[in-house]
Formats: sequence, C-alpha cells, structure tokens
Amino acid sequence: MSTLLLLSNSTSPGRPYLAHARDWIAEAVGDARRVAFVPYAAVTFAYDDYVARVREALDGLRLEIVGVHASADPAGVVAGADAVFVGGGNTFHLLREAYRHGLLDAIRQRVADGAPYVGWSAGSNLACPSVRTTNDMPIVEPPSLDALGLVPVQINPHYTDAHPPGHQGETRAQRLAEFVAANPESPVVGLPEGTAVRVADGRAGLLGEGAARVFDPQSPEGREAAPGEAEALFVR
Amino acid sequence: MSTLLLLSNSTSPGRPYLAHARDWIAEAVGDARRVAFVPYAAVTFAYDDYVARVREALDGLRLEIVGVHASADPAGVVAGADAVFVGGGNTFHLLREAYRHGLLDAIRQRVADGAPYVGWSAGSNLACPSVRTTNDMPIVEPPSLDALGLVPVQINPHYTDAHPPGHQGETRAQRLAEFVAANPESPVVGLPEGTAVRVADGRAGLLGEGAARVFDPQSPEGREAAPGEAEALFVR
Repeated sequence: MSTLLLLSNSTSPGRPYLAHARDWIAEAVGDARRVAFVPYAAVTFAYDDYVARVREALDGLRLEIVGVHASADPAGVVAGADAVFVGGGNTFHLLREAYRHGLLDAIRQRVADGAPYVGWSAGSNLACPSVRTTNDMPIVEPPSLDALGLVPVQINPHYTDAHPPGHQGETRAQRLAEFVAANPESPVVGLPEGTAVRVADGRAGLLGEGAARVFDPQSPEGREAAPGEAEALFVR
Repeated sequence: MSTLLLLSNSTSPGRPYLAHARDWIAEAVGDARRVAFVPYAAVTFAYDDYVARVREALDGLRLEIVGVHASADPAGVVAGADAVFVGGGNTFHLLREAYRHGLLDAIRQRVADGAPYVGWSAGSNLACPSVRTTNDMPIVEPPSLDALGLVPVQINPHYTDAHPPGHQGETRAQRLAEFVAANPESPVVGLPEGTAVRVADGRAGLLGEGAARVFDPQSPEGREAAPGEAEALFVR
C-alpha cells in the first residue's frame, strides 16, 4: 500500500492555498513526478483554473500536475500517473463525476500498485468507505454514496464545534452523533482545519496542531483521539 | 390541492417546541382532527418520544396525533388520516424510511385528495422535488434523493448567512450557489428560522418576520424575495 495523505482543508487563515500542507505533500509524493489531479469537486469555477491554482501552490516541488478532466480518458490519466491528487469542493459533485468517468476503480488500482494519494476536504471524504460524513450539500445525486475505501474509517473534514450563536440547526457534533447512532459499526474521525492524517507502511499518524476527535458508540458526542488511536483506526 | 404549511424550523429561541408556529398550524389544519405524524427524521431519540413531544406542543388544538411508526402499515395510517405532519431531524434518515414504508406515494395521494400537509425542517425538505437542498449530513443512503414534490421549488430550511469566524468550510450561501450552478433550472428559497411558506387555494405566501432569500442563475449569491415572488415560485 502506498502513502496516503488526507488533509482536512486546503487553506489556513492568512496563508496561501495549500501552504500549510506543502511539506507534508512533498514528503508524501517522494520521487513521484507525474500527478493526476482530479478537479471534479469544483462547481462554481473552471477545472482548468483549479489545476492552475494547484500548480501554482505546489510550484517548486518539481511535479507535473495534469488535470484528468482535460483528457478523453480520465481513468487512463490516473493509470499512467505516479501519484493521484483529489481536491476539495463539493463532495457529491466529485463523487458523481468520479463514477461517470470510471475513476473509482482506476484510483483504487493505482494506489494498490503504490501511487501516493493526496486528498483535501472532499478529496479526503472520497478516500473513505463512503461520503456519508461530508459536510457538503447533496447538490447532485451520485449513483451511490460509496467511495474509494482507501482507509477503513470515516473522516469528517473541516471538523469544528463552532456554531452560529442562536442558530437552531444541528451542530456538527449533533450531526456526527446521528451518524454514529445510525452506523454504530463505523467510527468517524473529525479532523480540525490545519490537520491531516498520514498513512504509510502500515503506520498512521496525525499531522498538524489541532486535536482530532473520535466519534463512536462509546463516545457519540466525540472524544479527543488518544495517542496511537489514529493508527488503530486507520490501519486494519 | 390542499393546504401546505412548510416551516423552516421547530423551535424559536426561548420559546417552547413549535410555539411560534402553533397558530399557523391551527389555521392550516382547519377541521382536520386525525393527524398522521411521520417521526422518521428522529435518529438519536425514540419515535414514541417524538410523538409525545408534538402532542404536548399542540395540546389544545383538539388533534388526534398518531405516529405512523407504531403501525404495521404506516402508509395505511396516512391514507386514513385527515392531515399529515412530518417532523424535523435528519432528512436522509426520514427519506430512507419514507421509501421503505411506501409513504411517498401514500402522502402524495392523501394530499392530492385534500389533506393538509405540515412539515418542519426535514419535513419541509421532504415536500420539495428532491432533498438536495438539505443542510443535513447524509448519514444513511436512501434509494433516491427524489422526494414528494408537493411544491415545484426547493426549500433550504434554517437558512442563515452566519458562519463561524475563521472557519474555512463553505458558507450556506456558497453551498446554495453551488446548487444553482449545478441545477440552473431549479431555484431555491432559503427560509430563515422563524419563517414558513403557506400554499393553499392556488395562492402562496410567506409567514414570519425574516426575509426569505431566492437563489437562482440570476442571483446565485441570493437576493431577498420580492413581494409576490413566493407565489410565482410555489404555485405553478
């Protein structure tokens, strides 16, 4: 199994796009040069612009970043790449297009063969068994909510316990408590912004400064991940 | 077509459950006495408790409120009721169970035959063509995201432009702009908490004090609903 780097988010306050993750990404890709970038989470901006933004953010890492959307055979671009990057945006749009272009099998195969996978936000949701812990609005309907399953546990990106004052809608913790009640067999790791999980060589660890939170039937309201717990959750 | 009352939310700050909507509900039900209540949006509390809460909130309106879950034939309870109420909670859980128990056709038929429909939060999402403008987490997977279609337009309940400071996740307006980009043919009405839409006798109007917002290709960032616009949107 190759290296997986799953980021909560792309942008830390006051810093350029992906800047907080640049060193982590460099480490994850290692010798890889040709990157298949999946931009299908973009909805309100152009795929070409998305590719340009990622190229600019990672300039200097000597990566050749190719948007899979520009090919008549997106799955072939994945198959021929050294690494796969999947960017954030709307998770449902990403998943629908990934199914449409046969990317799920292509990415699973390429990662099984050793290619590093880097995802952020919706791209981290995509790496999970399903996208059922996304925060995004289901603006389009994919054929299924099942996703890549590169890791055995669900991630909630952009995890926060902040909530607009007076607002009566569910808090994030309430939403995740509902997930746990409906799916007691499926723990969830809430990754605060600025954090990530790295899985490689049968080990897993948390990166960044915020504390990841674990939601499961013993802690439906969430608890801080214990030392070593990420490994128990992400490597099975 | 019967009277539809679609509420943004169940609870206004500092007031008991459904108190802000009690007079609207009384008006909507009219002479109806036997209410089929659909509690399937509840995930972390019992359906029986949900029925008890609604009965208590509407005590004095002389309604006989029956939870459809308690019957071996939930669709039959709908068919035999004078009115249908659908409560809030998790929209995906509500929709999955509604499909499982054959409630979509049963509710559509009963409403077409004249029964008032009252929904709040997830229950308002259910009245739309699809649930793709819910704020809820997709904790379970319904067979489809298509819903009742009692109204021709999408509602976003609990509409707010508030956002936790510093949080990098999408704002509600950004999520709805994505919906409009992906679905230009499908306008969305954002109902702030404390508001509702009432549809009856070929007329539609907004209730409550907050201004509804309309999201469509001309206003992907949203605009305040113009006078009479609700009628143009909800009655076709």
